Amino acid sequence: MTVKKIQGKKIAILATDGFEQSELFEPRKALLEAGAEVEIVSLKSGSIKGWNETDWGDSIAVDKTLDEVKSSEYHALMLPGGLFNPDTLRTDQKAVNFVSGFFAEDEQKPVGAICHGPWLLAEAGVVNDRKVTSYPSIQTDLKNAGAKWVDEKVVVDQGLVTSRKPDDLDAFNRKLIEEICEGRHAA
Amino acid sequence: MTVKKIQGKKIAILATDGFEQSELFEPRKALLEAGAEVEIVSLKSGSIKGWNETDWGDSIAVDKTLDEVKSSEYHALMLPGGLFNPDTLRTDQKAVNFVSGFFAEDEQKPVGAICHGPWLLAEAGVVNDRKVTSYPSIQTDLKNAGAKWVDEKVVVDQGLVTSRKPDDLDAFNRKLIEEICEGRHAA
Repeated sequence: MTVKKIQGKKIAILATDGFEQSELFEPRKALLEAGAEVEIVSLKSGSIKGWNETDWGDSIAVDKTLDEVKSSEYHALMLPGGLFNPDTLRTDQKAVNFVSGFFAEDEQKPVGAICHGPWLLAEAGVVNDRKVTSYPSIQTDLKNAGAKWVDEKVVVDQGLVTSRKPDDLDAFNRKLIEEICEGRHAA
Repeated sequence: MTVKKIQGKKIAILATDGFEQSELFEPRKALLEAGAEVEIVSLKSGSIKGWNETDWGDSIAVDKTLDEVKSSEYHALMLPGGLFNPDTLRTDQKAVNFVSGFFAEDEQKPVGAICHGPWLLAEAGVVNDRKVTSYPSIQTDLKNAGAKWVDEKVVVDQGLVTSRKPDDLDAFNRKLIEEICEGRHAA
């Protein structure tokens, strides 16, 4: 008997080719099981291809393109890692603006980012003075963007939930759902 | 009849698995043809595997591990791109120290970095106030590290040669060899 903790909440997962497979599929599953509606938002329609640790992995269908959505339509955002995924997204102004929207004064909604996902936060300029973690390789980029970087399984700072790697997924999913449930920063 | 412009010069290419194939093989070929001695320096002995645009590519043998070398043994350093390559290297303190060595006051030797290679320069903290280019996705990281980032085929700033992508390789190789030839900053 599952408690549907976040029924009625609509969550965007922003990703493109090269997302770390477990870091999209597992949070998506956890969010769905907790009762949320989840949409995969990407640069183009069709499907996007995951990266499974050491090689290309499984694909998933895109629900909406960035042209079709606004951050105001969602209660929260989730950013999976992988190397190619954020490296491509951060060069797209629509993707960066979509991320920024969740941090805007009139929105300030829960955002989860894991592994190399926080690169998009550095790109969007939203980590200044925020306590975050990430895959250790990008800690210098986050510190240089003004973040207070720490090496912890999961970090929560005013609705911003970050984790380091696939091993942290259980803690990450739990905290992300908790933040969405509290709706502390939901519009 | 080739002019051996940089005969007697010893160049280190620092790389690991996931180096962008053309960005290691082509500069290496150009440096060898110009008369230089070139060594592949990496984290472990054996061979390292390239990335060929969209999938894993060819391997190359490692000549020396970081445990066996010092920056003072080389006249110049070349850093190829690829995503996994610099992402792995920047987490290794020996790799970062090796890069820093080429920028030390008593060395200041020519350094070439292309595509995502300049990430290692951000990690080593050696781009403050330096004019550089890179693959556009990491421009924010370089700017946040203090660099004056520009979108040009090749940029030379006091012996530091940077380029954006494989298409720039001809210009990159030419300028790198020119800087090594001038030995402006060679010890």
